[in-house]
Amino acid sequence: SAPQDLDLQILETVMGQLNASRIREDLRELSREPHLATSPRDEDLVQLLLQRWRDPESGLDSAEAPKYEVLLSFPSQEQPNLVHVVGPTGDIIYSCRQTEENLTGEQGGPDVVQPYAAYAPPGAPQGLLVYANRGSEEDFKELQTQGIKLEGTIALTRYGGVGRVAKAVNAAKHGVAGVLVYTDPADINDGLSSPSETFPNSWYLPPSGVERGSYYEYFGDPLTPYLPAIPSSFRLGLANVSGFPPIPTQPIGFQDARDLLCNLNGTLAPATWQGALGCSYRLGPGFRPDGDFPADSQVNVSVHNRLELRNSSNVLGIIRGAVEPGEPSCHSPRPRLLLCSGCHCHCILIQPCPHHPHPSCPAHLSLFSGSLPFFLWPDRYVLYGNHRDSWVHGAVDPSSGTAVLLELSRVLGTLLKKGTWRPRRSIVFASWGAEEFGLIGSTEFTEEFFNKLQERTVAYINVDISVFANATLRVQGTPPVQSVVFSATKEIRSPGPGDLSIYDNWIRYFNRSSPVYGLVPSLGSLGAGSDYAPFIHFLGISSMDLAYTYDRSKTSARIYPTYHTAFDTFDYVDKFLDPGFSSHQAVAQTAGSVILRLSDSFFLPLNISDYSETLHNFLQAAQQDLGALLEQHSISLGPLVTAVEKFDAEAAALGGRISTLQKGSPDPLQVRMLNDQLMLLERTFLNPRAFPEERYYSHVLWAPRTGSVATFPGLSNACSRARDTAPGSEAWAEVQRQLSIVVMALEGAAATLRPVADL
Amino acid sequence: SAPQDLDLQILETVMGQLNASRIREDLRELSREPHLATSPRDEDLVQLLLQRWRDPESGLDSAEAPKYEVLLSFPSQEQPNLVHVVGPTGDIIYSCRQTEENLTGEQGGPDVVQPYAAYAPPGAPQGLLVYANRGSEEDFKELQTQGIKLEGTIALTRYGGVGRVAKAVNAAKHGVAGVLVYTDPADINDGLSSPSETFPNSWYLPPSGVERGSYYEYFGDPLTPYLPAIPSSFRLGLANVSGFPPIPTQPIGFQDARDLLCNLNGTLAPATWQGALGCSYRLGPGFRPDGDFPADSQVNVSVHNRLELRNSSNVLGIIRGAVEPGEPSCHSPRPRLLLCSGCHCHCILIQPCPHHPHPSCPAHLSLFSGSLPFFLWPDRYVLYGNHRDSWVHGAVDPSSGTAVLLELSRVLGTLLKKGTWRPRRSIVFASWGAEEFGLIGSTEFTEEFFNKLQERTVAYINVDISVFANATLRVQGTPPVQSVVFSATKEIRSPGPGDLSIYDNWIRYFNRSSPVYGLVPSLGSLGAGSDYAPFIHFLGISSMDLAYTYDRSKTSARIYPTYHTAFDTFDYVDKFLDPGFSSHQAVAQTAGSVILRLSDSFFLPLNISDYSETLHNFLQAAQQDLGALLEQHSISLGPLVTAVEKFDAEAAALGGRISTLQKGSPDPLQVRMLNDQLMLLERTFLNPRAFPEERYYSHVLWAPRTGSVATFPGLSNACSRARDTAPGSEAWAEVQRQLSIVVMALEGAAATLRPVADL
Ligand SMILES: [Ca+2]
Ligand SMILES: [Ca+2]
Ligand SMILES: [Zn+2]
Ligand SMILES: [Zn+2]
Ligand SMILES: [Zn+2]
Ligand SMILES: [Zn+2]
Repeated sequence: SAPQDLDLQILETVMGQLNASRIREDLRELSREPHLATSPRDEDLVQLLLQRWRDPESGLDSAEAPKYEVLLSFPSQEQPNLVHVVGPTGDIIYSCRQTEENLTGEQGGPDVVQPYAAYAPPGAPQGLLVYANRGSEEDFKELQTQGIKLEGTIALTRYGGVGRVAKAVNAAKHGVAGVLVYTDPADINDGLSSPSETFPNSWYLPPSGVERGSYYEYFGDPLTPYLPAIPSSFRLGLANVSGFPPIPTQPIGFQDARDLLCNLNGTLAPATWQGALGCSYRLGPGFRPDGDFPADSQVNVSVHNRLELRNSSNVLGIIRGAVEPGEPSCHSPRPRLLLCSGCHCHCILIQPCPHHPHPSCPAHLSLFSGSLPFFLWPDRYVLYGNHRDSWVHGAVDPSSGTAVLLELSRVLGTLLKKGTWRPRRSIVFASWGAEEFGLIGSTEFTEEFFNKLQERTVAYINVDISVFANATLRVQGTPPVQSVVFSATKEIRSPGPGDLSIYDNWIRYFNRSSPVYGLVPSLGSLGAGSDYAPFIHFLGISSMDLAYTYDRSKTSARIYPTYHTAFDTFDYVDKFLDPGFSSHQAVAQTAGSVILRLSDSFFLPLNISDYSETLHNFLQAAQQDLGALLEQHSISLGPLVTAVEKFDAEAAALGGRISTLQKGSPDPLQVRMLNDQLMLLERTFLNPRAFPEERYYSHVLWAPRTGSVATFPGLSNACSRARDTAPGSEAWAEVQRQLSIVVMALEGAAATLRPVADL
Repeated sequence: SAPQDLDLQILETVMGQLNASRIREDLRELSREPHLATSPRDEDLVQLLLQRWRDPESGLDSAEAPKYEVLLSFPSQEQPNLVHVVGPTGDIIYSCRQTEENLTGEQGGPDVVQPYAAYAPPGAPQGLLVYANRGSEEDFKELQTQGIKLEGTIALTRYGGVGRVAKAVNAAKHGVAGVLVYTDPADINDGLSSPSETFPNSWYLPPSGVERGSYYEYFGDPLTPYLPAIPSSFRLGLANVSGFPPIPTQPIGFQDARDLLCNLNGTLAPATWQGALGCSYRLGPGFRPDGDFPADSQVNVSVHNRLELRNSSNVLGIIRGAVEPGEPSCHSPRPRLLLCSGCHCHCILIQPCPHHPHPSCPAHLSLFSGSLPFFLWPDRYVLYGNHRDSWVHGAVDPSSGTAVLLELSRVLGTLLKKGTWRPRRSIVFASWGAEEFGLIGSTEFTEEFFNKLQERTVAYINVDISVFANATLRVQGTPPVQSVVFSATKEIRSPGPGDLSIYDNWIRYFNRSSPVYGLVPSLGSLGAGSDYAPFIHFLGISSMDLAYTYDRSKTSARIYPTYHTAFDTFDYVDKFLDPGFSSHQAVAQTAGSVILRLSDSFFLPLNISDYSETLHNFLQAAQQDLGALLEQHSISLGPLVTAVEKFDAEAAALGGRISTLQKGSPDPLQVRMLNDQLMLLERTFLNPRAFPEERYYSHVLWAPRTGSVATFPGLSNACSRARDTAPGSEAWAEVQRQLSIVVMALEGAAATLRPVADL
């Protein structure tokens, strides 16, 4: 890209000023107290963020904290959720812990919310216990195959495999009355489970630790789909809300799970169902006669969760893109002229003329106010966000991300307030509320400002948990963001040993062989794990999620072990996850560089041609794994092949036009037009009518794929459903419809990439 | 607006060159033969358009004619549709005409398609005749109330009141077996019906004239909703197509209708059901014993229409917006400097400095290639279109519009080819195919290029029938187009007597009292009567439809009398509708001026503040006519009031910012940003999830209103449905949901009007 566009000196300054110690201090403050969504401490942090972003010396141009009225779910303080073993005479003979063990003095406070399954309905089912592995549909079918009567039982399941709510949904389909969920040490602790081996003695989850979480199936406020949850908005009646767990559900620690599971009766569970609790897992139903509980004992799950309408705040801070040529972005250290000093001052870049390398054609010129524009695009937004709410102290989730957010905004805010810098495009920082309940703050924001954001947003960058572990960068994103992340990470030193760039370190852990570039770090795709979901799936905005994460060769932990427990504290991060905070700093630098490149480059650093690889992978999978089947049903992939080829050709041609312009001195309006083509490409993949049953999911390339073939999700899912139906069925018609939807999207996308005045 | 932006000299040239005689000659050629959609003559006209638009001296930059494969409906040539009276013994004792009488030598050709109801199913129902007025739901209820058994009858209905297909749908609900439709002389001929009083002796419809038409309920190709009808697209199975008439239906002339209707038995029809056939209309069932037919005679309606997949062409021609400052748009007659003649040539407007009225601060400057941009926006499109297909010769519908299209493109093309002019924004001319079957060509085009058009289109201008009658201009459009039409029409002389502008003439026929402007011509709103429908309702593009039309004080004709008949010929136009073609010229001038203003003005001449009046009218109607009812159900209009006020304020503030900039010398990027706000405003009213059951209709302000209160359609319709349901019903929940949808749209619209870098 043209050397004069992104100011490398500013970039260097920002990289140098992002400070690990400051991130550490911010994290200490952010995670000092539990800050569950809408709690007083959550609101204190809203004020902290506002204060930082309004600071006269290091703040942003403006900040505000709009609220939404949203439906959350909390356990009752008066009636805690309980899990008991009830003997044949009705006596309680065993009780699971109601809270986690107070190991560091931080697990005992009144603000530590009891472990619970948010949105699980109240109730007190009681029945024989069965073990249902991860609670997938296959798991319950296996139990059925084994002849186990599930009606009225309580199913003990372990985290992982399927989503939280799916366990309860699948269980209920088989007549199960209540669900328990625990984290098996095999899945999170590399098999370790004794107190001496776990936090605070290591990073592993203590025996009493319980993963909290939202058990809501969709995202956004449950009462206001597609409408912002402002007070006046229409709200669904509770009877019309779908997506909550159908039966009472409660998470427990593996210490309690061991007491239940190791006493089960019945057949030995399959090998893949075994875990690390130190006993052979049996399926039940009920306890074995020679165990700790009488054989007829049942398990009672008493859930007293309550739904409550609460006010949740987002905090939004903005650095306005430059509007006037006289603004700071103009003052970069390049030769310029001041014109017409008697009027307004204007500066203009002097570049070598491609035809006359030595300037030789001066013109005598009178210039007056306002006629020399720059490359200024305040109506283009770079969005950067993370949630603020935690389950307990949330040092890792989400405060490790929030600390990075604060440090980034401090460094950029300081340059801004000093008058050293102002971006070409506007930068919006967001601290989302109530993410833990289902990406609620971010989703409501996208609902409220749907059009404005869709029209103007260049990209959304999400940094939730900034450091899971300190081995390598991990990036999820849509193909166009690959190039900017690569550019950024090649220029930043990796925090680990050796003198590697983040990029060179990254490629050692996650890589793939690209037909275009050879071996490159591989990006993951975006599911719905954090606040990027509404941006990519509902709005079609190119998005990415950045974090530092594991060396998979050193641990098999499903996620960092204290995730969503009361043991996710500052000390945990400081001692085990990222001592010295160099990984936090690395993420801050990566994010900072990405932000600057997106906000300040003349040409948007989104390489849309990188979508071609995805399309070819999808196409190849369709051809190899579905081609024969489709042919049997007289469905041709030919139009899809043509559409992919058309996309390739137009994307490459557009790239060529940009390269040519970059060599010359492009006109700001030409750059703007091309940038609009780049920015809006992702939007062309959005079709709100493609998957009417999938709430919010409108992106025809990234909607959830339940079908087994790794191709276009609509096609894959439709084929899975049609596979066992007769030729000519409605399901096969839907396959054809989904194929046409993809072809239309790709043809439409290619059409937007053509020279703008062509038909 | 700034005097230097739109080139008034070019405008004057265009106005002067639009030539009535040329329009007349083009109309003669266009209407020389019948050109039913996809007929050989229709394809000949495709070639004619291509030839004109590719002409080296008066053509456009490029033109092409893409085809769609669409489902049309035609009568059988071997088995014509027949309407008989069948006597008690089964004898045919009377037959309606199969074709119109050959009065001018033009009604007899093989290419004159038999009158038919397109998409009516084949069948030969036979039964007693009833008269059902206009075939509305109320009309059939009235017959029921009168105790008339409708089961198995044939219903004779007259055009008007409800849409074509509604007559058959309503009839079928009551068990009617077949439907006849005719045009009553009271509705079209000011009561006149004798051959001496009708064409070719006057403009009135001859007794044998029959209105053809599409009886499809939706628009677009029936087999490919939301997908372009390219060959590879998924097509619905016929069993899954909805919107076709449920029973055989056939239109007839009033001569035949008189023979049937004046012989009916039964009760006298209500006064409002009476027409001008010269007898008292009775309801039936069956014929009166003392009439022309035996009392037990039945009517047989034999329909042999066939559905056929046909290739229909659109013709698209483009004048590319200027890309390089050196292109013609730069050569306007204002002082400018050529810079750096050794490199590229650039011109720059010299304007007085607001601070130093006498230029006094020259700067010595070296400027090189490409750094002085102009106001050039080739990626913004002004769309102008009309359909090409007719039912028969279609001199009025649509060739009067096509002749205007050809003349406009000739004049602009000539300036273009001479190098005198090139627009700032791109202009796309379209000749749509298969409109008569349901806006098919235009709808498929919007489906194929949905994103590209939504992102970039400034406005869509439709001129279908350009002259219904020669009294006054008639404009339908969304509020933002009012200003540009007013500006254009104030500067053009009206063709009538006196020295009035089109505007001053127009205001005498259609006017309203605006709280902002006082007495102004009133614009109608856009239904789905022509090809603007997909642009406004499906894409949310500001649209307008222009025509010259009646003096309502001189005729009560429902539409021009020969509409969709074989009598809509060149002579008809030349002798009766617009002798001298001055009204055609007036429409061409109006459209030409609107196109130039939209394509060449620095600031888009779309006054978005004019939406405020609509919003206040809707709001007032809601308050007055629904307020009390809503209050009873605890639904507050408060948030709607706030949203409307917010819209007002933001629209006014944006208008203020534009005015301020216009006084100075605005930066092209600033202008572009503001123009994007103007252009995209209409898009913010689009919500594809607002009315899922209404195909294509997504505009929350202009979707079809079936409710009685003239307010926001979603609210009006939901209230109509909820009115008689219990408090707390789902219908009342829908009222609240619709209210929230409007509030969200208005709040979202206001948000896009704020200064772009504000939150
Ligand atoms: Ca919502
Ligand atoms: Ca279609
Ligand atoms: Zn998180
Ligand atoms: Zn979390
Ligand atoms: Zn027409
Ligand atoms: Zn027509």
